[in-house]
Amino acid sequence: MAMEQLSPLMPVLKDSELSERAQKVFEDIRATRSTDYVNNVWRVLANNDTLLEETWADVKSVLSPDGELDVLTKQLIYIAVSVANGCTYCVRSHTAAARQLGLTDAQLAELHRVIGVASKTNSLMLGLQVPVDDALA
Amino acid sequence: MAMEQLSPLMPVLKDSELSERAQKVFEDIRATRSTDYVNNVWRVLANNDTLLEETWADVKSVLSPDGELDVLTKQLIYIAVSVANGCTYCVRSHTAAARQLGLTDAQLAELHRVIGVASKTNSLMLGLQVPVDDALA
Amino acid sequence: MAMEQLSPLMPVLKDSELSERAQKVFEDIRATRSTDYVNNVWRVLANNDTLLEETWADVKSVLSPDGELDVLTKQLIYIAVSVANGCTYCVRSHTAAARQLGLTDAQLAELHRVIGVASKTNSLMLGLQVPVDDALA
Amino acid sequence: MAMEQLSPLMPVLKDSELSERAQKVFEDIRATRSTDYVNNVWRVLANNDTLLEETWADVKSVLSPDGELDVLTKQLIYIAVSVANGCTYCVRSHTAAARQLGLTDAQLAELHRVIGVASKTNSLMLGLQVPVDDALA
Amino acid sequence: MAMEQLSPLMPVLKDSELSERAQKVFEDIRATRSTDYVNNVWRVLANNDTLLEETWADVKSVLSPDGELDVLTKQLIYIAVSVANGCTYCVRSHTAAARQLGLTDAQLAELHRVIGVASKTNSLMLGLQVPVDDALA
Amino acid sequence: MAMEQLSPLMPVLKDSELSERAQKVFEDIRATRSTDYVNNVWRVLANNDTLLEETWADVKSVLSPDGELDVLTKQLIYIAVSVANGCTYCVRSHTAAARQLGLTDAQLAELHRVIGVASKTNSLMLGLQVPVDDALA
Repeated sequence: MAMEQLSPLMPVLKDSELSERAQKVFEDIRATRSTDYVNNVWRVLANNDTLLEETWADVKSVLSPDGELDVLTKQLIYIAVSVANGCTYCVRSHTAAARQLGLTDAQLAELHRVIGVASKTNSLMLGLQVPVDDALA
Repeated sequence: MAMEQLSPLMPVLKDSELSERAQKVFEDIRATRSTDYVNNVWRVLANNDTLLEETWADVKSVLSPDGELDVLTKQLIYIAVSVANGCTYCVRSHTAAARQLGLTDAQLAELHRVIGVASKTNSLMLGLQVPVDDALA
Repeated sequence: MAMEQLSPLMPVLKDSELSERAQKVFEDIRATRSTDYVNNVWRVLANNDTLLEETWADVKSVLSPDGELDVLTKQLIYIAVSVANGCTYCVRSHTAAARQLGLTDAQLAELHRVIGVASKTNSLMLGLQVPVDDALA
Repeated sequence: MAMEQLSPLMPVLKDSELSERAQKVFEDIRATRSTDYVNNVWRVLANNDTLLEETWADVKSVLSPDGELDVLTKQLIYIAVSVANGCTYCVRSHTAAARQLGLTDAQLAELHRVIGVASKTNSLMLGLQVPVDDALA
Repeated sequence: MAMEQLSPLMPVLKDSELSERAQKVFEDIRATRSTDYVNNVWRVLANNDTLLEETWADVKSVLSPDGELDVLTKQLIYIAVSVANGCTYCVRSHTAAARQLGLTDAQLAELHRVIGVASKTNSLMLGLQVPVDDALA
Repeated sequence: MAMEQLSPLMPVLKDSELSERAQKVFEDIRATRSTDYVNNVWRVLANNDTLLEETWADVKSVLSPDGELDVLTKQLIYIAVSVANGCTYCVRSHTAAARQLGLTDAQLAELHRVIGVASKTNSLMLGLQVPVDDALA
C-alpha cells in the first residue's frame, strides 16, 4: 500500500545521492541480504556516514546466521523489543523479515500472546512491588 | 543471596494463609512445574483469588510446551519484553527459567546483544521519523 | 521497614537545612495535607527552590479536592501512570495515599487487573498494527 | 473521518470471514455491549481463535460493571496506561468509551493534567533517585 | 507537507474560538517567540484554560534563555526524552526548534547516535542486572 | 555508600579473571578515561568478549571529545534517555560523569526540570492526539 506519510527529519536518499562510504555500506547490505532492495532505514541513516556504518555493523552482527541463537528467534526478540518501545517501523520491518524466514500465522499469534502476557505480568510485579525471592536474588 | 528488600504492597502469603481457591492454583503450579517451590509472584497475587487465577491461567497458557513456538524461545521473548519494560523481578525469574531450559552463557549474551541493538534502532527510527516503505505499508 | 538504600543524587534535607522559600512550601504542604510529615520527595526537591515550588504547585493543583474528578480516582490514575513508567517511589507513595482515602484490598487488586489488561492490549494493538476504525479516526 | 492508514499485520476480518469460535465471541461482544458494531481490534484478533477468546475474556472481565471500581474510573485508568505506553488505538477507543459513559470535556482535561503531572514527577523521582521513606518501605 | 491525519480528541481551535484567558496565553506565546504562528499543541490545549495556562507556564519556564543551561542544549534534552517516550509530535516540533537555534545536520546525527547508544546500554544494564558500584551508591 | 544489592546475572569479573581480549578493552578504558578505576558495567560485560568490545566501541565513539556536540551536553542527553528508560545504574553513572565535567547543582536541577516538563508534554500530546502541523509534517 502506497500512502502519504509524514516526512522524515533527514531525507530518504536515492542511490545516486549516496556518498562513497554510504555506497560501500549499501553494497554490503545488498550482498548480505541477497536482494537489491534497500529499505528506508538505511536511506535515511545514509545522511551521516558514521551513523550508517555503525548501525549497519550493529544489525549485521547481531542478526548474523552464525550466532548462538537461530535467526528467526532473534527476529522474534527484535519484534518483542520493538513492540514494547512502540516503534511502528521496526515492528513492521522485522515482522516482514520473520515471515520471510518462515514464521507462520499461528506462530505470529503466539508471539503476540507471549508479549501481551509479559506486558501484563511486568505491570503486576511493578504495581504490587513483589520482592525478589532469595533463590533469585 | 538473602537480603532485605522493600516490602510488597500486598503480603507474601505462606501456604497456610491461602484461600481454598488459591490452594487449588498452587497445586496446579506445582504439578505443572514439577517442583514444590512456588515463588513470590504467586504468593503476592494470592491475596486476590481472581487476580491469581487469571494470571496463572495466562502464564500457563502462553508458556505451554504444546504451543507454536518452543518454550525456550518464549522465555527469551518474555525476557526481552521485561527488559524493555524495566521489570527487575521478571528479568530475573525468566532468566532463571531460561537457564533451567538450557540457555548457555553465550546465548544469554547474544540475547542481550539483540535486545540492545533493537533498543538502539528503535530510537533511531523514532528520532529520525523514518517513513514506512511502500513495501511494508 | 527501615533499610539501607542507594543515596539520592541531591541530599534529603532536614527542616533545619531549608531555604526560606523552601520553608514556605513545606508549610503549605503541611497545611494542605493536615500532617506534620513531609516525605522524601520534597526534601530532595528542596535543594532547588524553583524545582520545589513548581513541582508542589503541580501536585497540589491536580490532586485538589475541588477538581472535576474525585481525589481517589485521581490517585488511581497516578498509580497507573507510575506503574507504566516503572517508578517505584511513586507507586508506593500514591498507593499509600489511596489507602488513606479508603481504597480497599479488593479495589487495589482490581486496579492492577485493569492496568495489567491495558498493558496487554496496548502491546497487542502495537504488535498487530491495528488500524483506527473510521468511527474513531 | 475516513482516511488511508497503514495496513495491519493480520487482516481485518469481516463477519463472513469468521471461524465458528470467533463468531461466538462476536455474539458475546455484541450482547455485552448492546451494539451491533464490533471494532477493528476484535476483527484483527479474530485471525487466531485463542488470541481472540483470551483477550475478550480479559477485557470483559476487568471492565465488568459488577467490579470493585466503577466502570468510568476503570476506563480512565485504561486511558492513563495507554498514554504511558504510547498506544494510539487504545487512547482513542477508550476515550470514546469513557465519553459514552458520560465523561465531560472538563473531566477529560483533568484526566490529562493528572497523567501529565504523574509523568513529570515519575521522571523527577527516577532522575534524582529519591530513596523510599521508612514509612513507605 | 499537508496531509490528512487522525483528528485530535479535543478540537484545534482557531484564534476566533479562544476564551479570553486563552487569548492572553496566545499573546504571551507570540511575544515570547517573536512569531505570529501558534502551533497545534496550544490550539488543542486551549480547550481548557487551566491546562493551557499551566502547560505554557511550564514550557516557557524551562526553555527560558535565562536558565542554567543554554537553550539549544535544553532542546536536545527535550528531543531525547521525546524519542524515549515515543512522542512523534514532540520529536518533530523540538527538532524544528533546535534547527532554528542553529543545530546542524552533523549535530543532529550525533544527537541520535548518543540517544541510540544510551538506549542500548540502558537495556544492557537492566538485562544483566548490573549492581551499582560502591563508588556510585 | 556500600550496601548489599541483588547479584548480577553474569558475575562481576576481577582483573585477574579477564580473557586476553577483555584485558585489551580494559587497557583502552583506562587510557581513554585516565583512571585506573573500571566500573561494574564493564566487569559484567567482560563475561562475553564480543559484548564487551562492541559496547565499549559504542560508548567510546559517541562520548568522544572530538564529536559535534560537547561532552557535557552528551552526558546530559545520556542522562535524559536513562531517566526515560528507568535505568538506575545509567542515571547514577552518567550523573557522576557529568559532575566530573563540571555540572553544577543548579544545572542538574534545570536538567531535571526540562526532563520533567518534556515527560509531561509528551503525555499530553499522546493523550489528546494532537495532529502534526502542516509546517512540521
